[in-house]
Amino acid sequence: MEQLHIIKIGGNVIDDEKTLSSFLKEFAGIDGRKILVHGGGKLATKLAEQLNIPQQIVDGRRITDAETLKIVTMVYAGYINKNIVAKLQAHNCNTIGLCGADGDSILAHKRKHPVMDYGFVGDVDAINVDLINSLLEKNIAIAFAPITHDQQGQLLNTNSDTIAQELGKALSKLYEVELIYTFEKSGVLLNTNDDSTIINRINPASYQQLKSKEKIYAGMIPKLDNAFAALNSGVKKVIIGKAENLQQLIAGTSGTSIVNE
Amino acid sequence: MEQLHIIKIGGNVIDDEKTLSSFLKEFAGIDGRKILVHGGGKLATKLAEQLNIPQQIVDGRRITDAETLKIVTMVYAGYINKNIVAKLQAHNCNTIGLCGADGDSILAHKRKHPVMDYGFVGDVDAINVDLINSLLEKNIAIAFAPITHDQQGQLLNTNSDTIAQELGKALSKLYEVELIYTFEKSGVLLNTNDDSTIINRINPASYQQLKSKEKIYAGMIPKLDNAFAALNSGVKKVIIGKAENLQQLIAGTSGTSIVNE
Repeated sequence: MEQLHIIKIGGNVIDDEKTLSSFLKEFAGIDGRKILVHGGGKLATKLAEQLNIPQQIVDGRRITDAETLKIVTMVYAGYINKNIVAKLQAHNCNTIGLCGADGDSILAHKRKHPVMDYGFVGDVDAINVDLINSLLEKNIAIAFAPITHDQQGQLLNTNSDTIAQELGKALSKLYEVELIYTFEKSGVLLNTNDDSTIINRINPASYQQLKSKEKIYAGMIPKLDNAFAALNSGVKKVIIGKAENLQQLIAGTSGTSIVNE
Repeated sequence: MEQLHIIKIGGNVIDDEKTLSSFLKEFAGIDGRKILVHGGGKLATKLAEQLNIPQQIVDGRRITDAETLKIVTMVYAGYINKNIVAKLQAHNCNTIGLCGADGDSILAHKRKHPVMDYGFVGDVDAINVDLINSLLEKNIAIAFAPITHDQQGQLLNTNSDTIAQELGKALSKLYEVELIYTFEKSGVLLNTNDDSTIINRINPASYQQLKSKEKIYAGMIPKLDNAFAALNSGVKKVIIGKAENLQQLIAGTSGTSIVNE
């Protein structure tokens, strides 16, 4: 099977013009099929402040009311997505920017929760593999904004880590998928303040050991659980590391590789 | 050749939720290949006001400085485009929303003018017929936001009438194109205040007569000149009328048809 790289970037890359530019140059240079999934960043929060739209955060999660959905649709699917696409075009990387409503590429439903109403937040139901693959086969890269839809006309704010993971799982039917999550650290670290304590490789057995010895920072556990869930659904490899090291992450000389063997 | 309908809507449709909803329902019902081109609307102006970004208008044209480009990218390519796509999906019309940077679909250059600097305004150079046709052939409708790019990483604010026209000209190689411009009147009128004075059909000979007798409102002349330019570049028919009458415009029972014969 052909390789497919799915790379997720977050606010720490998006908010820094220089980091974003050099990342996009490296992304453009990746051989073969590729998908970029981007999150939000500070611009949405800043815009909400400027427009006096109060942001409700409950348990660390932003509640997406109608006005906030409007802002994230503008910022994520408009400003960030189209600027990323234009910059990739400048690097001769033909890219199409999509949200989940486009081509019905990512179907979701409004999150149901017994107590909390998260507002217009979507949980993913289905990926339109046929549409996505038809673009990849034309040698077009795809940049996904973290907005989905419910097929009833409602856009939904959706976690970009989840989008990357669902894309990875669905596209594993057709491709050997490497899922790359970039964040502010060099990888999974034994000591979160020391990049030299990076764990190069984690498999199910070593993960159990690390967890039982409480060697892993609690914040990493959900990320790693998701990584193993992706592997169990067909993804070949999950890599966690710094966006600045994209080439090395792909070459396997930087970051933490999470594998099933 | 197969038919292709390219339909342009402006602020009078976009700004009125009810008009937009019923228009999109009718658009979804059009048989065969179709492209929607939308303009802006009041939301961009309102957002600029709320953010205290002064809007410079020279000779009736908005100057697109960097901050204004940011706003139109957010509003046109983000909020308006993605809401249109989500609503069309709810009508079972699979649609993909694009700006000109996506898939390098519309290449433009920053407008050069001997005296005026219009800012980040684009004049269209090329349409990526191959990409657009590959989507149409998959029975996907396309919704274009009036933002293009220059292949150097710069997004450009571009007139939506022009985008519709350039799409029509380029796609005439593959399709029998009907180009439909919607606006606030029922069509080209002899008396701009009286919808019953509509001219049903204009061809080059009758256009010369109407012009020489000064029967046509001056503001319509550029629209009609552009319509004939499109016909001379291969477009089969141009129709001008009300978005509310979309089905009748297509059936030829409403609006003004501009033809070469």
